[in-house]
Formats: sequence, C-alpha cells, structure tokens
Amino acid sequence: MLLNLEKIAQTDKKRVVIIGGGFAGLELAKTLEKTDLQIVLIDKHNYHTFQPLLYQVATAGLEASSIIHPYRRIMQDQENFFFRMAEAQSVDTETQTLETSIGFIRYDYLVIATGATANFYGNKELQEKAISLKSIEDALLLRNTIISNFEKALQVNDEEQLNSLMDFVIVGGGPTGVEIAGALSELRKHVFPKGFRELDFVNMDIHLIQSGPDLLKGMSPVASRKAKQYLDEFGVTVWLNRRVKSFDGYKVTLDNGEQLCSRILIWAAGVTGAPVKGIKDECMVSGNRYKVDQFNRVVCYDNIFAIGDIAAMISPEYPDGCPMLAQPAIQQGRNLGNNIIRYQAGKKPKPFKYNDRGSMATIGRNKAVADLKIFNREIRTQGFRAWLIWMFIHLISIIGFRNRLVVLINWVWKYLRYDAGIGVIIGERKENKPVEESVEKARI
Amino acid sequence: MLLNLEKIAQTDKKRVVIIGGGFAGLELAKTLEKTDLQIVLIDKHNYHTFQPLLYQVATAGLEASSIIHPYRRIMQDQENFFFRMAEAQSVDTETQTLETSIGFIRYDYLVIATGATANFYGNKELQEKAISLKSIEDALLLRNTIISNFEKALQVNDEEQLNSLMDFVIVGGGPTGVEIAGALSELRKHVFPKGFRELDFVNMDIHLIQSGPDLLKGMSPVASRKAKQYLDEFGVTVWLNRRVKSFDGYKVTLDNGEQLCSRILIWAAGVTGAPVKGIKDECMVSGNRYKVDQFNRVVCYDNIFAIGDIAAMISPEYPDGCPMLAQPAIQQGRNLGNNIIRYQAGKKPKPFKYNDRGSMATIGRNKAVADLKIFNREIRTQGFRAWLIWMFIHLISIIGFRNRLVVLINWVWKYLRYDAGIGVIIGERKENKPVEESVEKARI
Repeated sequence: MLLNLEKIAQTDKKRVVIIGGGFAGLELAKTLEKTDLQIVLIDKHNYHTFQPLLYQVATAGLEASSIIHPYRRIMQDQENFFFRMAEAQSVDTETQTLETSIGFIRYDYLVIATGATANFYGNKELQEKAISLKSIEDALLLRNTIISNFEKALQVNDEEQLNSLMDFVIVGGGPTGVEIAGALSELRKHVFPKGFRELDFVNMDIHLIQSGPDLLKGMSPVASRKAKQYLDEFGVTVWLNRRVKSFDGYKVTLDNGEQLCSRILIWAAGVTGAPVKGIKDECMVSGNRYKVDQFNRVVCYDNIFAIGDIAAMISPEYPDGCPMLAQPAIQQGRNLGNNIIRYQAGKKPKPFKYNDRGSMATIGRNKAVADLKIFNREIRTQGFRAWLIWMFIHLISIIGFRNRLVVLINWVWKYLRYDAGIGVIIGERKENKPVEESVEKARI
Repeated sequence: MLLNLEKIAQTDKKRVVIIGGGFAGLELAKTLEKTDLQIVLIDKHNYHTFQPLLYQVATAGLEASSIIHPYRRIMQDQENFFFRMAEAQSVDTETQTLETSIGFIRYDYLVIATGATANFYGNKELQEKAISLKSIEDALLLRNTIISNFEKALQVNDEEQLNSLMDFVIVGGGPTGVEIAGALSELRKHVFPKGFRELDFVNMDIHLIQSGPDLLKGMSPVASRKAKQYLDEFGVTVWLNRRVKSFDGYKVTLDNGEQLCSRILIWAAGVTGAPVKGIKDECMVSGNRYKVDQFNRVVCYDNIFAIGDIAAMISPEYPDGCPMLAQPAIQQGRNLGNNIIRYQAGKKPKPFKYNDRGSMATIGRNKAVADLKIFNREIRTQGFRAWLIWMFIHLISIIGFRNRLVVLINWVWKYLRYDAGIGVIIGERKENKPVEESVEKARI
C-alpha cells in the first residue's frame, strides 16, 4: 500500500518545491499547471490568505473565511500539484533536500516564497504586547481584543483605565495603518455606539503614529496629503515624525517622552523577511531578504529561487529591491513559472520586469486615494471615485466566486446599514494587564 | 462620571436578570421590550448561537459567523435591555443578588436559562478526549480536528494509524448524531476526495452508536426507520443497542468488547443541565434540571424562574419534563415574559402549554425526516420534501437578514457544486495521540 509522502515520491518527474503559498507561491504553482513537473507546496496553514483585506476581518467587517481559501480547493483540478501542511525547517543544498516538520523532500528547483513577518526591531516587549496584522490569526486576535476590551470598559470607573480600554494606538502610516485607523473611526462613529449604548465614544481616541513626515510613503504627495486630510476629518490623531519607544501593555511611550494610554497597540510599522535555515548568509541583504538576480535566482545558487516579499531584487529603479506588495509578488511568481518552463525546454530565462500598475489605500466610507498607472498614463484620484475603484479591484482579486459574493453582501450591508456584522469574540484575545486585577467588583 | 455596571444601577425600575441568552433567554428579553422593567442579560459569550446548525459549522458547510449573532446587535433598539459578558457564579436568594465574574447584580426577578451541556456520565476520559457539539467553539474544534487529521493521514503508512485518522465514531442517535453522520458521509462522497486526492476515502468509516433500538427516539417509527435506511444507503455503519465503554483517544471500546479505531469521538449522547450555585438542591431533579411549576417558577422560590433546557416542567403528558428542544425553550421564554408583565399588573399568570409543532432531522442531500403538527394534524414526511421543509424552516429561523442570505448562498453553492466551502484550520484542534510520536519522518 502506498501512502503518505511516498505517494508523491513515486515520480520520475522533476520536482519544484515551493515554500509558502502567498500571492507569489500560489501564482507560481498555477503557472506550472500544464508542465511535466511535479509541484509540491509547503505551507504552515492549509489556506491562502488575501492579506489586503485582513484589516477588515480585524475590524469586524468581514468573516475570516471570506478572505481565505484552502489550497486543496483552489488547486483541486491541477493534477501535478501536491500540498503538504508543514513548516520548512532547513535546506540541505548539497543533497537538494528540504527538511520539514513532517519529512524530508528532495527538490530539483526550490522556491522560497515565505514572505515577511512583522519587524519589531528586536524590541521583545513590543513583540509580546503589540498586535500585528500579517495573518488571519492576528486579525482575529485583534477583533476579539477590541470587542472584549469594550465589554470590560463597562466594568471600570477610573478614567485612565477607561481610556486604556477604549483608545487605540496604531504604529505605521503605510496602507495597513491608514486603513485600520479609518476603519476604526468609522466603527466609532456608526457602529459601536449602537451596541455599546452605555459607553461614551467621545472617549475613544485613535492615534496613528508615523516615523516619517508623510503618510503612505511611496505614493504621490497628493495621495499622502489627502489621506492625512481624510483622517483628520474622521477624527484620527496623526502623529508625524514620531516613533514608539516602549509599550508595557498599558502605556505607549513615544520618542519625545509623550505617553498614550492604551492596552491595544497595533503594529503596522515594518516587516522583515522570513528566511529559511541552510541558505548561506551571504545571500541575504538587510531586512532578512534574499538577494536575487533578475531571474529571481538567489545569488549563491543555481536552482534556488526567491519570490515575493522575501526576495530583494535590486535594480537602479528599485535600489531597496522591488516593493513588498501583492502585485510584484504575483508577477514574480508568474515570471519564474515561465522561466522554469524555459529551463526545462533548454531555453534562456527572461528577466523580471515589474509592471507597476500603481497603488491605493482606502480610508473609510467613500474615501480612498489611488495612484494608478494605466497604459503608462498616471492617473491620480481621491475620494469617492478612488473608493469605488479600490472596492472593485479588491473584490475581483478575491479567490472564489462564493467568497466574492459573500464579501459583496457584507460590504453592501455595511454601507446601507452602517453596520459591521462580525462583532463576536471567538477564541483568543490579548490580555494586556487584565482589568480584573485592578477593578473591584461592582455592586448594583 | 457614571460608568460601568453603575450605569444600569441608576434605575428605579424593577430588574429582571436573565442568565443565558439561548433560545429561551433571548425570547424572554424580547418579550419584555415594551415594559417598564430593566432587563439585564448575562452570558459568557457575547453572541447568541443558533445551535441546530452547529453541525454544519463542524462539517465545513457554514462559517461560524453565519449562525451566531452578537446580543448587542440583536437588541440594539431595545432601550430597557442591558447585556453583560460574564459568568454567573452564585445566587444569594436572601439578598436577591447574583454574583457574576464581573460584579454583583441585585434582581427582582431571576431567570435561569443556562441550558444544558454534554453529559459524559462521570467518565473523565471521555470528557477529555471526546468532542461534543454544544457551542461554536466545539464546532470549530471539530472542524479543525477533522481537516487536520486528514492532513496528517498523508504522513502515515500504517493501516491502523490511517484508520484512526480517517474514521469517525459518533455516539448518540438523536438529531445531532444522525445529522453529523449524514453530513460526514456527504463529505466523504463529494468533497474530501477532490481536495485530498492522495487519500483513498474507501478507508473512511463512519460509525454511529445508539444505546437504544431506534434512531431519533421521540420521533415517529416511520421517521426513525427511514433515517436508518438513509444512513445505510449513505454507507454509515449504525450500531443499535450499543454503548461506548471507553475511549483512550485512539481506540473506542464498546460494551460488547468490540473496538473501533478512531482519534475522533463525537459525543452527541446526552446532556445535563448547567445549574447555578446557591439554588437549593431540593429544587433539582435528575439530569441537573430545575423542577419548575407550570409558570416556570423554580419550585422552592417565588421570584426565581427557569426556562429552556435547564427547566424540568413535569406533566402527565411529559413525565420527564418538556423536551429539551428549541421550540419549548422559545415558547417558555415568551410565556414567562407575558407572565412577568401580568405579575407587574397584578394579574394572575397563565400556565405554560407546549404547542408541539413537530420535529425533524436532515440526513444529507435531499434526505430528511419530518413529523409535523399543523393545526393539530399530524403530517409525516420523508425524503426530498422533508428536506426542503427542513431547509426552509431553519433558514427563516436564523437571526438577521444578512446571515440568512449568507447561509442561503452557502447552501445553494454546496448543492450545485458538491462543495463544502469552509475547510480551513484556524485555531485549536484536538490532538489525541499526536501522529508525530509514532511516525518516523518520511523521505521522498
């Protein structure tokens, strides 16, 4: 009887092992569909996550299952595709073997598509107490913690404690930080006061902290100016040129000594690559990313590639490497796939060229900013039109017709009813300084 | 500044404290909407659960958020309603005070609507290793464990180990047991083989164990006969007149010594009331339920009531108490609400009379059984028609238009595409005997 990993072992085909099923890895696997190669995808989750909408799961606007999709279902018709839920542990480049949590897999081509994780720059306290927003677990943790803190706010009398439960500090003025600040301000205005009638949401402050002078670095000046203006209108306190020095789970201290009282610090300030053991250190550049050539080949190797956020493809146009976004990841996955097909046919690979279609961020109801590039024309738009474009592009990018439909229903519902549907607490929440410690039981 | 529990303390209204927001407690709270009473609902979750569809969440057919609804949203327009997420700890009937995990609440009327939990009849091993299906956490735990076990099945070579990961033992031949057995057999036939192409689902056995001679005890003989017939057709092994003696997380031993190998034992065999400390023991009957009179008054008290599964209203027609189902719970909640209004007006209360509209269970695609009572006429129907009725009634019973729409989409999708959408692993799974202990790492 042939079981387990051995089933995929019975092959005379060349094997492509992909570590990580994000935008890059998944696109690569799909591109290799019609080939005579065996594709093995390793991921610690059994589903692909549509990361750009994580913040909506965190703010109770969408259910987790609408933005994730099991690999086995996405790929169920692709016969040369095999999935294993496992963690990559180390590579032995001599024997061309990847050790995983469930077994050893020999590879002909190894593709590292492990993406990036939150970068706390070595600050252990922050790492432990802050909530980042890179995975569905993060998003659910944040959602549970927000709702749970409001429930607790009903127990406290002390004004400082109340602030600590109702205020939010978001670090990082990129798209994630801006989007979550906007979403929270919408909840404050339209949603929370209906459910939590006894709380006064005048008490809920939203702080957005950005280390540089502008929000949405990398977008056009008009986009970052407008984003700031919208956030001001929504009542978000934007701190520019400020950094977080420390966070003890209750007080956030800024670099100028100022203190903000909050039990929730949302960390959207920076990312670092998620490298794999066994790859030579000299292939790595700052930010824990692998230096790749224009064919996404990790520089020290012939048959090891890196794509997506983990790959640093440095060029005159992009001296820090290609931007860590969904589009370059997808395009690199596709280009590498086509190149592997070329290698197999004995042809020369084609260099990767990033086709930048622009970027965008939504701030809240009817408000977004977009810098688009269409047929080499730059179109900059803000406000309602940008918001419609944002929604349309995100909706069609979600995998699966059923998911798209459910997301659309949730969005229409939220828009018409000023209602965020998913305000439930299921599973873990982050208990920074439990209220129970400091509050005497009330008596009514 | 007036915060916390004290906000609800500032009232000269009489206070009704309800413990538990299931069908009974929620209906009671709604019935008291237009009164001059203050309603305080205590629940350890912040959402109401539509329990009859838990099994569909467990079998990856529905997302959790479709069948749960935050109390604060359901009740957001009812001004005399207050919710506190807390656990009831004990009642002091002298001072009319309920102690909860977050404070002490004085009551004028106390209503116990805590429902029932799985009854393991004192078997600690079963309690620890089995999975019951009473809460959304249970359902998600089961879903995660099922999918995760199939992922693990790809690692093992040994036939017994493989069976332990792919087989299911369900204990209890009531509606929950029958429905989950049917749902699993559908997944085995249509869904799992597409995603897990390398596993042979001939290996997946589904055992349903019923202590008595018939399935669906309490329904008509034709319903239980048909249910058995459908399950036979679906390839479920039904064991009648058998009990589970023990389960070590790997082997299920029956009372006749027979052993079934499975890491998943689904416990749908019996429930026991969830009582509250401080209520006199003599008010309790077998099964940990409170003996109530025909006004749902707990027999030893004047102003303490019990409704729903926790209430044992014994009558000539129902010598074991009213059945522990959604319908009697809802009707008791409504009747008690109306009676409390009568008490307030100095009127006599009306005795509860259960209006039995019948019961039903779905077994799988196009197959259900229903014993209906409509205008005192008994209608017994099985098969496709019963299945349509089952779907219609459950769909309209779900709270919230958005939830109904999302459930409908999922059902239609599943029906047309032979696809169960939510096969993702997020959060906890039950690791009975981890595979890693016994399996050497494969090498391919």
